[in-house]
Amino acid sequence: MRYEESVIEGRNAVLEALKSGRSIDRIFVLDGCQDGPVNTIKREAKKRDIMLRFVQKERLDQLSESGKHQGVIAYVAAYEYAEVEDLLQAARDAGEDPFLLILDGIEDPHNLGAIIRSANQAGAHGVIIPKNRAVGLTATVAKTSAGALNYTPVARVTNLVRCMEDLKKEGLWFVCADMDGEVMYRQNLTGPIGLVIGSEGGGVSRLVKETCDLMASIPMKGQIDSLNASVAAGILCYEIVRQRGFGA
Amino acid sequence: MRYEESVIEGRNAVLEALKSGRSIDRIFVLDGCQDGPVNTIKREAKKRDIMLRFVQKERLDQLSESGKHQGVIAYVAAYEYAEVEDLLQAARDAGEDPFLLILDGIEDPHNLGAIIRSANQAGAHGVIIPKNRAVGLTATVAKTSAGALNYTPVARVTNLVRCMEDLKKEGLWFVCADMDGEVMYRQNLTGPIGLVIGSEGGGVSRLVKETCDLMASIPMKGQIDSLNASVAAGILCYEIVRQRGFGA
Repeated sequence: MRYEESVIEGRNAVLEALKSGRSIDRIFVLDGCQDGPVNTIKREAKKRDIMLRFVQKERLDQLSESGKHQGVIAYVAAYEYAEVEDLLQAARDAGEDPFLLILDGIEDPHNLGAIIRSANQAGAHGVIIPKNRAVGLTATVAKTSAGALNYTPVARVTNLVRCMEDLKKEGLWFVCADMDGEVMYRQNLTGPIGLVIGSEGGGVSRLVKETCDLMASIPMKGQIDSLNASVAAGILCYEIVRQRGFGA
Repeated sequence: MRYEESVIEGRNAVLEALKSGRSIDRIFVLDGCQDGPVNTIKREAKKRDIMLRFVQKERLDQLSESGKHQGVIAYVAAYEYAEVEDLLQAARDAGEDPFLLILDGIEDPHNLGAIIRSANQAGAHGVIIPKNRAVGLTATVAKTSAGALNYTPVARVTNLVRCMEDLKKEGLWFVCADMDGEVMYRQNLTGPIGLVIGSEGGGVSRLVKETCDLMASIPMKGQIDSLNASVAAGILCYEIVRQRGFGA
Protein backbone atom coordinates (compact mmCIF):
# COMPACT_ATOMS: atom_id res chain seq x y z
CA MET A 1 0.00 0.00 0.00
CA ARG A 2 2.87 2.41 0.58
CA TYR A 3 5.87 3.07 -1.57
CA GLU A 4 9.28 2.66 -0.06
CA GLU A 5 10.11 6.34 -0.06
CA SER A 6 7.27 7.08 2.34
CA VAL A 7 8.63 4.76 5.06
CA ILE A 8 11.33 5.90 7.47
CA GLU A 9 13.03 3.37 9.72
CA GLY A 10 15.41 3.71 12.63
CA ARG A 11 15.72 6.13 15.55
CA ASN A 12 17.93 8.77 13.99
CA ALA A 13 16.08 8.81 10.68
CA VAL A 14 12.71 9.23 12.39
CA LEU A 15 14.06 11.89 14.77
CA GLU A 16 15.46 13.85 11.85
CA ALA A 17 12.20 13.62 9.96
CA LEU A 18 10.41 14.97 13.04
CA LYS A 19 12.89 17.82 13.41
CA SER A 20 12.71 18.78 9.74
CA GLY A 21 8.96 19.22 10.08
CA ARG A 22 7.99 16.61 7.48
CA SER A 23 4.35 15.52 7.57
CA ILE A 24 4.29 12.19 9.37
CA ASP A 25 1.20 10.00 9.22
CA ARG A 26 1.93 7.67 12.11
CA ILE A 27 4.81 6.15 14.02
CA PHE A 28 5.11 2.54 15.15
CA VAL A 29 7.19 2.11 18.29
CA LEU A 30 8.34 -1.06 20.00
CA ASP A 31 6.10 -1.59 23.00
CA GLY A 32 7.92 -1.02 26.31
CA CYS A 33 10.93 0.64 24.70
CA GLN A 34 12.14 3.42 27.06
CA ASP A 35 15.55 4.60 25.94
CA GLY A 36 16.52 8.21 25.26
CA PRO A 37 15.97 8.63 21.49
CA VAL A 38 12.72 6.66 21.57
CA ASN A 39 11.42 8.79 24.44
CA THR A 40 12.31 11.91 22.45
CA ILE A 41 10.41 10.51 19.44
CA LYS A 42 7.37 9.79 21.65
CA ARG A 43 7.48 13.28 23.15
CA GLU A 44 7.85 15.02 19.77
CA ALA A 45 5.10 12.89 18.26
CA LYS A 46 2.69 13.77 21.07
CA LYS A 47 3.58 17.45 20.82
CA ARG A 48 2.81 17.43 17.11
CA ASP A 49 -0.26 15.26 17.50
CA ILE A 50 1.11 12.41 15.39
CA MET A 51 -0.52 9.05 15.95
CA LEU A 52 1.69 6.68 17.94
CA ARG A 53 1.17 2.94 17.91
CA PHE A 54 2.91 0.64 20.34
CA VAL A 55 3.45 -2.76 18.78
CA GLN A 56 5.32 -6.00 19.32
CA LYS A 57 8.67 -6.73 17.70
CA GLU A 58 7.08 -9.24 15.30
CA ARG A 59 4.83 -6.52 13.88
CA LEU A 60 7.75 -4.14 13.41
CA ASP A 61 9.78 -6.85 11.69
CA GLN A 62 6.84 -7.44 9.39
CA LEU A 63 6.45 -3.74 8.55
CA SER A 64 10.16 -3.17 8.10
CA GLU A 65 11.51 -2.97 4.58
CA SER A 66 15.15 -2.46 5.50
CA GLY A 67 15.24 -4.92 8.38
CA LYS A 68 16.88 -2.20 10.50
CA HIS A 69 14.02 -0.48 12.28
CA GLN A 70 15.68 -0.25 15.74
CA GLY A 71 12.24 -0.26 17.29
CA VAL A 72 10.83 2.70 15.30
CA ILE A 73 9.11 2.97 11.94
CA ALA A 74 7.46 6.15 10.68
CA TYR A 75 5.17 6.65 7.69
CA VAL A 76 5.65 9.95 5.97
CA ALA A 77 2.90 11.65 4.04
CA ALA A 78 3.67 11.73 0.35
CA TYR A 79 2.05 15.16 0.17
CA GLU A 80 1.68 18.04 2.58
CA TYR A 81 -1.60 18.64 4.35
CA ALA A 82 -3.45 21.92 4.17
CA GLU A 83 -5.20 23.74 7.01
CA VAL A 84 -9.01 23.86 7.11
CA GLU A 85 -8.73 27.63 6.76
CA ASP A 86 -6.95 27.13 3.41
CA LEU A 87 -10.03 25.31 2.12
CA LEU A 88 -12.35 28.15 3.12
CA GLN A 89 -9.94 30.64 1.58
CA ALA A 90 -10.01 28.67 -1.70
CA ALA A 91 -13.80 29.12 -1.76
CA ARG A 92 -13.48 32.85 -1.03
CA ASP A 93 -10.85 33.22 -3.74
CA ALA A 94 -13.21 31.57 -6.22
CA GLY A 95 -16.11 33.75 -5.05
CA GLU A 96 -18.15 30.59 -4.39
CA ASP A 97 -20.06 29.11 -1.49
CA PRO A 98 -17.74 26.61 0.23
CA PHE A 99 -18.16 23.02 -0.93
CA LEU A 100 -16.09 20.63 1.20
CA LEU A 101 -15.89 16.86 1.50
CA ILE A 102 -15.55 15.34 4.95
CA LEU A 103 -14.38 11.72 4.87
CA ASP A 104 -15.20 9.84 8.04
CA GLY A 105 -12.65 7.05 7.98
CA ILE A 106 -11.84 6.06 4.37
CA GLU A 107 -9.24 3.29 4.70
CA ASP A 108 -8.51 2.25 1.13
CA PRO A 109 -5.92 4.52 -0.55
CA HIS A 110 -7.48 3.88 -3.98
CA ASN A 111 -10.82 5.14 -2.70
CA LEU A 112 -9.25 8.22 -1.12
CA GLY A 113 -7.38 8.99 -4.34
CA ALA A 114 -10.51 8.57 -6.47
CA ILE A 115 -12.51 10.78 -4.10
CA ILE A 116 -9.91 13.57 -4.25
CA ARG A 117 -10.08 13.26 -8.04
CA SER A 118 -13.89 13.56 -7.99
CA ALA A 119 -13.72 16.47 -5.53
CA ASN A 120 -11.42 18.30 -7.94
CA GLN A 121 -13.68 17.71 -10.96
CA ALA A 122 -16.84 18.60 -9.06
CA GLY A 123 -15.30 21.93 -8.07
CA ALA A 124 -15.10 21.19 -4.35
CA HIS A 125 -12.72 23.46 -2.45
CA GLY A 126 -11.08 20.75 -0.42
CA VAL A 127 -11.25 17.49 1.48
CA ILE A 128 -11.05 16.93 5.24
CA ILE A 129 -9.90 13.62 6.69
CA PRO A 130 -9.40 12.48 10.29
CA LYS A 131 -6.00 11.70 11.81
CA ASN A 132 -7.00 8.33 13.17
CA ARG A 133 -8.49 5.21 11.66
CA ALA A 134 -8.10 6.48 8.12
CA VAL A 135 -5.54 6.39 5.35
CA GLY A 136 -3.43 9.53 4.91
CA LEU A 137 -1.84 11.08 1.83
CA THR A 138 0.38 8.22 0.79
CA ALA A 139 2.06 7.80 -2.57
CA THR A 140 -0.72 5.43 -3.66
CA VAL A 141 -3.35 8.06 -2.87
CA ALA A 142 -1.40 10.66 -4.82
CA LYS A 143 -1.10 8.34 -7.82
CA THR A 144 -4.78 7.33 -7.77
CA SER A 145 -5.83 10.96 -7.56
CA ALA A 146 -4.42 11.38 -11.09
CA GLY A 147 -2.87 14.73 -10.24
CA ALA A 148 -5.86 16.14 -8.35
CA LEU A 149 -3.82 16.22 -5.14
CA ASN A 150 -1.75 19.02 -6.68
CA TYR A 151 -4.85 21.21 -6.91
CA THR A 152 -7.37 20.11 -4.30
CA PRO A 153 -6.18 20.73 -0.74
CA VAL A 154 -6.59 18.02 1.88
CA ALA A 155 -6.71 18.95 5.57
CA ARG A 156 -6.34 16.44 8.37
CA VAL A 157 -7.95 17.05 11.75
CA THR A 158 -7.87 15.30 15.11
CA ASN A 159 -11.58 15.61 15.78
CA LEU A 160 -14.04 15.66 12.89
CA VAL A 161 -17.01 16.68 15.06
CA ARG A 162 -15.23 19.70 16.51
CA CYS A 163 -14.04 20.68 13.03
CA MET A 164 -17.62 20.47 11.73
CA GLU A 165 -18.90 22.57 14.61
CA ASP A 166 -16.29 25.22 13.84
CA LEU A 167 -17.28 25.16 10.18
CA LYS A 168 -20.93 25.60 11.11
CA LYS A 169 -19.94 28.92 12.65
CA GLU A 170 -18.57 29.82 9.21
CA GLY A 171 -22.00 29.20 7.73
CA LEU A 172 -21.55 25.67 6.46
CA TRP A 173 -24.15 23.00 6.94
CA PHE A 174 -23.59 19.30 6.60
CA VAL A 175 -25.24 16.52 4.69
CA CYS A 176 -24.20 12.93 5.22
CA ALA A 177 -24.58 9.98 2.91
CA ASP A 178 -26.90 7.59 4.70
CA MET A 179 -29.28 4.92 3.45
CA ASP A 180 -31.91 5.99 5.96
CA GLY A 181 -31.93 9.56 4.68
CA GLU A 182 -34.32 11.20 2.24
CA VAL A 183 -33.46 10.58 -1.42
CA MET A 184 -30.78 13.07 -2.51
CA TYR A 185 -32.78 14.33 -5.50
CA ARG A 186 -35.40 15.66 -3.10
CA GLN A 187 -32.95 17.45 -0.79
CA ASN A 188 -31.79 21.01 -1.15
CA LEU A 189 -28.04 20.67 -1.51
CA THR A 190 -27.23 24.25 -2.47
CA GLY A 191 -25.40 26.86 -0.36
CA PRO A 192 -22.23 26.46 1.73
CA ILE A 193 -22.07 22.70 2.18
CA GLY A 194 -20.00 19.94 3.70
CA LEU A 195 -20.66 16.50 2.22
CA VAL A 196 -19.88 13.75 4.72
CA ILE A 197 -18.92 10.29 3.40
CA GLY A 198 -18.58 7.32 5.75
CA SER A 199 -16.00 4.57 5.83
CA GLU A 200 -16.06 1.57 3.50
CA GLY A 201 -17.23 -0.82 6.15
CA GLY A 202 -19.09 1.16 8.77
CA GLY A 203 -20.57 4.21 7.08
CA VAL A 204 -20.76 7.48 8.99
CA SER A 205 -20.00 7.21 12.71
CA ARG A 206 -22.70 8.10 15.22
CA LEU A 207 -21.30 11.36 16.58
CA VAL A 208 -20.47 12.67 13.12
CA LYS A 209 -23.94 11.73 11.91
CA GLU A 210 -25.53 13.56 14.84
CA THR A 211 -23.55 16.66 13.88
CA CYS A 212 -24.98 16.60 10.36
CA ASP A 213 -27.95 18.78 9.45
CA LEU A 214 -29.50 16.25 7.12
CA MET A 215 -29.06 12.80 5.66
CA ALA A 216 -29.25 12.11 1.94
CA SER A 217 -29.58 8.69 0.37
CA ILE A 218 -28.70 7.41 -3.06
CA PRO A 219 -31.62 5.31 -4.31
CA MET A 220 -30.63 1.64 -4.25
CA LYS A 221 -32.54 -0.59 -6.65
CA GLY A 222 -30.26 -3.59 -6.31
CA GLN A 223 -30.00 -6.68 -4.17
CA ILE A 224 -26.71 -5.82 -2.49
CA ASP A 225 -25.87 -3.56 0.44
CA SER A 226 -24.14 -0.52 -0.84
CA LEU A 227 -22.05 1.19 -3.49
CA ASN A 228 -18.27 1.50 -3.56
CA ALA A 229 -17.38 4.43 -1.28
CA SER A 230 -15.65 6.45 -3.99
CA VAL A 231 -18.52 5.88 -6.43
CA ALA A 232 -21.06 6.98 -3.80
CA ALA A 233 -18.99 10.08 -3.08
CA GLY A 234 -18.83 10.87 -6.80
CA ILE A 235 -22.58 10.48 -7.27
CA LEU A 236 -23.36 12.77 -4.31
CA CYS A 237 -20.77 15.33 -5.42
CA TYR A 238 -22.42 15.53 -8.81
CA GLU A 239 -25.91 15.85 -7.37
CA ILE A 240 -24.52 18.92 -5.60
CA VAL A 241 -22.99 20.07 -8.90
CA ARG A 242 -26.37 19.64 -10.62
CA GLN A 243 -28.26 21.52 -7.93
CA ARG A 244 -25.68 24.31 -7.93
CA GLY A 245 -26.36 24.72 -11.62
CA PHE A 246 -22.82 24.08 -12.81
CA GLY A 247 -23.98 21.86 -15.58
CA ALA A 248 -27.19 23.61 -16.54
CA MET B 1 -4.75 -9.61 -10.27
CA ARG B 2 -6.09 -13.15 -10.56
CA TYR B 3 -6.52 -15.73 -7.86
CA GLU B 4 -4.81 -19.05 -8.23
CA GLU B 5 -8.01 -20.97 -8.75
CA SER B 6 -8.75 -19.10 -11.92
CA VAL B 7 -5.51 -20.16 -13.60
CA ILE B 8 -5.18 -23.52 -15.33
CA GLU B 9 -1.77 -24.74 -16.41
CA GLY B 10 -0.63 -27.67 -18.50
CA ARG B 11 -1.97 -29.35 -21.66
CA ASN B 12 -4.26 -31.92 -20.09
CA ALA B 13 -5.72 -29.54 -17.54
CA VAL B 14 -6.51 -26.94 -20.18
CA LEU B 15 -7.93 -29.56 -22.57
CA GLU B 16 -10.21 -30.87 -19.83
CA ALA B 17 -11.38 -27.39 -18.95
CA LEU B 18 -12.23 -26.84 -22.61
CA LYS B 19 -14.11 -30.14 -22.82
CA SER B 20 -16.07 -29.49 -19.63
CA GLY B 21 -17.37 -26.26 -21.12
CA ARG B 22 -15.94 -23.95 -18.47
CA SER B 23 -15.87 -20.25 -19.37
CA ILE B 24 -12.31 -19.50 -20.39
CA ASP B 25 -11.14 -15.92 -20.70
CA ARG B 26 -7.99 -16.44 -22.72
CA ILE B 27 -5.28 -19.00 -23.38
CA PHE B 28 -1.57 -18.33 -23.60
CA VAL B 29 0.26 -20.78 -25.85
CA LEU B 30 3.97 -21.18 -26.48
CA ASP B 31 4.70 -19.58 -29.84
CA GLY B 32 5.59 -22.14 -32.50
CA CYS B 33 4.40 -25.12 -30.48
CA GLN B 34 2.81 -27.64 -32.90
CA ASP B 35 2.31 -30.95 -31.12
CA GLY B 36 -0.98 -32.85 -30.93
CA PRO B 37 -2.55 -31.69 -27.64
CA VAL B 38 -1.55 -28.07 -28.26
CA ASN B 39 -3.07 -28.18 -31.74
CA THR B 40 -6.29 -29.57 -30.25
CA ILE B 41 -6.32 -26.74 -27.72
CA LYS B 42 -5.83 -24.18 -30.48
CA ARG B 43 -8.61 -25.72 -32.57
CA GLU B 44 -11.08 -25.91 -29.66
CA ALA B 45 -10.25 -22.37 -28.60
CA LYS B 46 -10.90 -21.04 -32.10
CA LYS B 47 -14.13 -23.00 -32.37
CA ARG B 48 -15.37 -21.49 -29.12
CA ASP B 49 -14.06 -18.02 -29.94
CA ILE B 50 -11.66 -17.91 -26.99
CA MET B 51 -8.82 -15.45 -27.29
CA LEU B 52 -5.50 -17.14 -28.03
CA ARG B 53 -2.21 -15.44 -27.41
CA PHE B 54 1.07 -16.82 -28.71
CA VAL B 55 3.91 -15.86 -26.41
CA GLN B 56 7.55 -16.65 -25.74
CA LYS B 57 8.64 -19.16 -23.10
CA GLU B 58 9.86 -16.36 -20.81
CA ARG B 59 6.38 -14.85 -20.68
CA LEU B 60 4.80 -18.22 -19.85
CA ASP B 61 7.36 -18.83 -17.13
CA GLN B 62 6.49 -15.45 -15.70
CA LEU B 63 2.73 -16.12 -15.79
CA SER B 64 3.06 -19.63 -14.40
CA GLU B 65 2.24 -20.20 -10.76
CA SER B 66 2.98 -23.91 -10.69
CA GLY B 67 6.09 -23.78 -12.86
CA LYS B 68 4.62 -26.63 -14.92
CA HIS B 69 2.75 -24.94 -17.74
CA GLN B 70 3.94 -27.30 -20.55
CA GLY B 71 3.47 -24.45 -22.98
CA VAL B 72 -0.16 -23.70 -22.14
CA ILE B 73 -1.81 -21.47 -19.53
CA ALA B 74 -5.55 -20.72 -19.47
CA TYR B 75 -7.43 -18.14 -17.46
CA VAL B 76 -10.83 -19.31 -16.38
CA ALA B 77 -13.68 -16.91 -15.74
CA ALA B 78 -14.59 -16.88 -12.08
CA TYR B 79 -18.24 -16.49 -13.07
CA GLU B 80 -20.32 -17.57 -16.02
CA TYR B 81 -21.24 -15.10 -18.72
CA ALA B 82 -24.82 -14.42 -19.73
CA GLU B 83 -26.17 -13.95 -23.24
CA VAL B 84 -27.26 -10.50 -24.41
CA GLU B 85 -30.78 -11.91 -24.77
CA ASP B 86 -30.76 -12.71 -21.01
CA LEU B 87 -30.24 -9.02 -20.29
CA LEU B 88 -33.22 -8.00 -22.44
CA GLN B 89 -35.31 -10.72 -20.83
CA ALA B 90 -34.43 -9.35 -17.38
CA ALA B 91 -35.84 -5.98 -18.46
CA ARG B 92 -39.01 -7.65 -19.80
CA ASP B 93 -39.40 -9.64 -16.59
CA ALA B 94 -39.18 -6.42 -14.59
CA GLY B 95 -41.62 -4.69 -16.93
CA GLU B 96 -39.09 -1.92 -17.47
CA ASP B 97 -37.40 -0.25 -20.43
CA PRO B 98 -34.02 -1.93 -20.90
CA PHE B 99 -31.12 -0.15 -19.21
CA LEU B 100 -27.78 -1.70 -20.16
CA LEU B 101 -24.16 -0.74 -19.62
CA ILE B 102 -21.70 -1.24 -22.47
CA LEU B 103 -18.09 -1.13 -21.34
CA ASP B 104 -15.69 -0.40 -24.17
CA GLY B 105 -12.45 -1.85 -22.84
CA ILE B 106 -12.32 -1.54 -19.04
CA GLU B 107 -8.99 -3.10 -18.06
CA ASP B 108 -8.82 -2.74 -14.29
CA PRO B 109 -10.68 -5.52 -12.45
CA HIS B 110 -11.44 -3.17 -9.54
CA ASN B 111 -13.12 -0.75 -11.91
CA LEU B 112 -15.13 -3.53 -13.59
CA GLY B 113 -16.25 -4.86 -10.20
CA ALA B 114 -17.26 -1.41 -8.97
CA ILE B 115 -19.19 -0.74 -12.21
CA ILE B 116 -21.13 -4.02 -11.91
CA ARG B 117 -21.93 -3.00 -8.32
CA SER B 118 -23.20 0.41 -9.48
CA ALA B 119 -25.17 -1.20 -12.33
CA ASN B 120 -26.91 -3.42 -9.79
CA GLN B 121 -27.80 -0.55 -7.48
CA ALA B 122 -28.93 1.71 -10.31
CA GLY B 123 -31.33 -0.99 -11.47
CA ALA B 124 -29.57 -1.69 -14.77
CA HIS B 125 -30.50 -5.01 -16.36
CA GLY B 126 -27.00 -6.05 -17.26
CA VAL B 127 -23.51 -5.22 -18.45
CA ILE B 128 -21.91 -5.97 -21.82
CA ILE B 129 -18.14 -6.27 -22.19
CA PRO B 130 -15.97 -7.08 -25.21
CA LYS B 131 -13.95 -10.27 -25.53
CA ASN B 132 -10.71 -8.53 -26.39
CA ARG B 133 -8.63 -5.82 -24.78
CA ALA B 134 -10.69 -5.88 -21.60
CA VAL B 135 -10.69 -7.66 -18.28
CA GLY B 136 -13.15 -10.55 -17.90
CA LEU B 137 -15.00 -11.90 -14.88
CA THR B 138 -12.07 -12.81 -12.71
CA ALA B 139 -12.15 -13.56 -9.01
CA THR B 140 -11.00 -10.00 -8.27
CA VAL B 141 -13.90 -8.59 -10.27
CA ALA B 142 -16.34 -10.84 -8.43
CA LYS B 143 -14.93 -9.75 -5.06
CA THR B 144 -14.96 -6.04 -5.92
CA SER B 145 -18.55 -6.29 -7.14
CA ALA B 146 -19.53 -7.01 -3.49
CA GLY B 147 -21.97 -9.70 -4.55
CA ALA B 148 -23.55 -7.79 -7.44
CA LEU B 149 -22.21 -10.34 -9.92
CA ASN B 150 -24.67 -12.85 -8.46
CA TYR B 151 -27.57 -10.66 -9.55
CA THR B 152 -26.51 -8.48 -12.46
CA PRO B 153 -25.77 -10.51 -15.61
CA VAL B 154 -22.67 -9.78 -17.65
CA ALA B 155 -22.53 -10.72 -21.33
CA ARG B 156 -19.36 -10.81 -23.36
CA VAL B 157 -19.41 -10.20 -27.10
CA THR B 158 -16.85 -10.38 -29.88
CA ASN B 159 -17.94 -7.19 -31.60
CA LEU B 160 -19.43 -4.36 -29.58
CA VAL B 161 -20.55 -2.39 -32.63
CA ARG B 162 -22.48 -5.31 -34.12
CA CYS B 163 -24.03 -6.01 -30.72
CA MET B 164 -25.14 -2.39 -30.44
CA GLU B 165 -26.62 -2.47 -33.93
CA ASP B 166 -28.59 -5.58 -33.02
CA LEU B 167 -29.82 -3.90 -29.84
CA LYS B 168 -30.93 -0.87 -31.81
CA LYS B 169 -33.31 -3.17 -33.66
CA GLU B 170 -34.73 -4.03 -30.22
CA GLY B 171 -35.47 -0.37 -29.67
CA LEU B 172 -32.41 0.62 -27.63
CA TRP B 173 -30.52 3.79 -28.28
CA PHE B 174 -27.04 4.56 -27.06
CA VAL B 175 -25.43 7.36 -25.16
CA CYS B 176 -21.69 7.45 -24.63
CA ALA B 177 -19.73 9.24 -21.97
CA ASP B 178 -17.62 11.79 -23.80
CA MET B 179 -16.12 15.09 -22.74
CA ASP B 180 -17.11 16.68 -26.05
CA GLY B 181 -20.77 15.80 -25.57
CA GLU B 182 -23.59 17.97 -24.28
CA VAL B 183 -23.81 18.12 -20.46
CA MET B 184 -25.70 15.04 -19.21
CA TYR B 185 -28.21 17.08 -17.21
CA ARG B 186 -29.48 18.60 -20.46
CA GLN B 187 -29.84 15.29 -22.32
CA ASN B 188 -32.93 13.12 -22.38
CA LEU B 189 -31.70 9.83 -20.93
CA THR B 190 -35.08 8.12 -20.52
CA GLY B 191 -36.43 5.17 -22.50
CA PRO B 192 -34.63 1.96 -23.53
CA ILE B 193 -31.01 2.94 -23.15
CA GLY B 194 -27.48 1.61 -23.45
CA LEU B 195 -24.90 3.64 -21.55
CA VAL B 196 -21.44 3.32 -23.14
CA ILE B 197 -18.37 3.82 -20.94
CA GLY B 198 -14.88 3.98 -22.44
CA SER B 199 -11.64 2.48 -21.24
CA GLU B 200 -9.52 3.99 -18.47
CA GLY B 201 -6.88 5.31 -20.80
CA GLY B 202 -8.48 5.83 -24.19
CA GLY B 203 -12.15 6.57 -23.62
CA VAL B 204 -14.72 5.29 -26.11
CA SER B 205 -13.24 3.94 -29.35
CA ARG B 206 -14.09 5.64 -32.64
CA LEU B 207 -16.35 3.00 -34.19
CA VAL B 208 -18.31 2.51 -30.97
CA LYS B 209 -18.68 6.27 -30.59
CA GLU B 210 -19.98 6.55 -34.16
CA THR B 211 -22.58 3.91 -33.35
CA CYS B 212 -23.89 5.96 -30.42
CA ASP B 213 -26.93 8.17 -30.81
CA LEU B 214 -25.65 10.90 -28.54
CA MET B 215 -22.74 11.91 -26.36
CA ALA B 216 -23.17 13.05 -22.77
CA SER B 217 -20.53 14.79 -20.70
CA ILE B 218 -20.05 15.08 -16.97
CA PRO B 219 -19.22 18.71 -16.18
CA MET B 220 -15.56 18.97 -15.20
CA LYS B 221 -14.66 21.94 -13.03
CA GLY B 222 -11.19 20.73 -12.11
CA GLN B 223 -7.69 21.09 -13.44
CA ILE B 224 -7.14 17.43 -14.28
CA ASP B 225 -8.18 15.33 -17.26
CA SER B 226 -10.91 12.99 -16.18
CA LEU B 227 -12.67 11.04 -13.47
CA ASN B 228 -11.98 7.48 -12.43
CA ALA B 229 -13.83 5.23 -14.92
CA SER B 230 -15.99 3.52 -12.29
CA VAL B 231 -16.88 6.85 -10.68
CA ALA B 232 -17.84 8.32 -14.07
CA ALA B 233 -19.97 5.25 -14.81
CA GLY B 234 -21.70 5.59 -11.42
CA ILE B 235 -22.44 9.28 -11.94
CA LEU B 236 -23.94 8.66 -15.39
CA CYS B 237 -25.94 5.66 -14.15
CA TYR B 238 -27.50 7.81 -11.46
CA GLU B 239 -28.30 10.63 -13.85
CA ILE B 240 -30.29 8.00 -15.76
CA VAL B 241 -31.88 6.88 -12.46
CA ARG B 242 -32.85 10.47 -11.71
CA GLN B 243 -34.33 11.07 -15.14
CA ARG B 244 -36.21 7.77 -14.99
CA GLY B 245 -37.82 9.02 -11.80
CA PHE B 246 -36.63 6.16 -9.59
CA GLY B 247 -35.65 8.52 -6.86
CA ALA B 248 -38.41 11.08 -7.22
